[in-house]
Amino acid sequence: MPKKNLKMRVVVAPTPAVIAAAYDENGKADACTLAFYSPISHVPPCVVIGINATQKRKTLKSILSSGVFSIGYPSTDQVKEADYIGVDSGYDTDKLANIGYTVTEGQTVHVPVIDQLKLSLECKVVHTVTVGSHMQITGEIKNIQADEEILDEKGRVVLEKLKPLIYDEEGFSYHTLGDSFADSFKTGAEFKKSIGR
Amino acid sequence: MPKKNLKMRVVVAPTPAVIAAAYDENGKADACTLAFYSPISHVPPCVVIGINATQKRKTLKSILSSGVFSIGYPSTDQVKEADYIGVDSGYDTDKLANIGYTVTEGQTVHVPVIDQLKLSLECKVVHTVTVGSHMQITGEIKNIQADEEILDEKGRVVLEKLKPLIYDEEGFSYHTLGDSFADSFKTGAEFKKSIGR
Repeated sequence: MPKKNLKMRVVVAPTPAVIAAAYDENGKADACTLAFYSPISHVPPCVVIGINATQKRKTLKSILSSGVFSIGYPSTDQVKEADYIGVDSGYDTDKLANIGYTVTEGQTVHVPVIDQLKLSLECKVVHTVTVGSHMQITGEIKNIQADEEILDEKGRVVLEKLKPLIYDEEGFSYHTLGDSFADSFKTGAEFKKSIGR
Repeated sequence: MPKKNLKMRVVVAPTPAVIAAAYDENGKADACTLAFYSPISHVPPCVVIGINATQKRKTLKSILSSGVFSIGYPSTDQVKEADYIGVDSGYDTDKLANIGYTVTEGQTVHVPVIDQLKLSLECKVVHTVTVGSHMQITGEIKNIQADEEILDEKGRVVLEKLKPLIYDEEGFSYHTLGDSFADSFKTGAEFKKSIGR
């Protein structure tokens, strides 16, 4: 199959859409939706996010000044609210108040945890570096809060219950999570055996 | 809804499963599957990956020694191969040869691009830092290669044709991408108008 070279852009998707939030210096909760986000370490658990630094986003400023942030997962039935938080600006208005969202202070760090989101992480900034147009921020997870309704009996998050938003950067659209169809490690281990390794 | 505090781990999912590859000092192509991966900058386009640094993974060594790497997207019909590349070790065997995968050198940087993957990025390392158990590696995308069959008429990647693997770190399983159900920016802009902003 011949390969074609594409125009240089971030085609790389899909990623989960999440809402980052932080208190500004006056105690107001800022929030922005972003899709540049991934876990990055197991022990201790850490995540990395990328926020456009050329647009002077208020949430970015509040994350850097407070040194802490929360990450919340909107569900598919919250797509309007999540997308809105990505298009309006906290300099002009109180985005969370506008949509009836409320926050509770984190239990481990001074961050606003959005009550209406079913899964939230409380994070402390451990590393930052400017990468092109974005600020790359690594956070250590200090606490994880979840609604009981998205957990199984062992206390693990069930993605089918969380119904996260999967963002398609190329198609400018949100997808649902599809079906689970293969186990990790087991699938590879069986295949390994089948090829005589 | 009362929140429950969860056990401290990286519950944060779902993320796309991709295959990172790099040449070792003898010109052998190493590859490993990983799910700690996200775009991180638009201009220039950059990605960030996390690779476990405590397991002395050979691909990590080759990325750091060569300063470049490729990222390839396996499709759902390649889940066995992708998961296998995550469970076997390049110190013991030639994983790619074992499954009949071949590589072609990148056009912009000295990286192995896996021929059988429909979407690949050629990347140059621009930043590294140890984060907990993992090495966090940021790469600038120098070229993007794709099979024609996954592109639309404008040359953009169509995720429904790529059929990426979505990894669930909590459930240890691979999911398909679900349906597109809302446009980004438009959904939020309409909602903004509806609430009088």
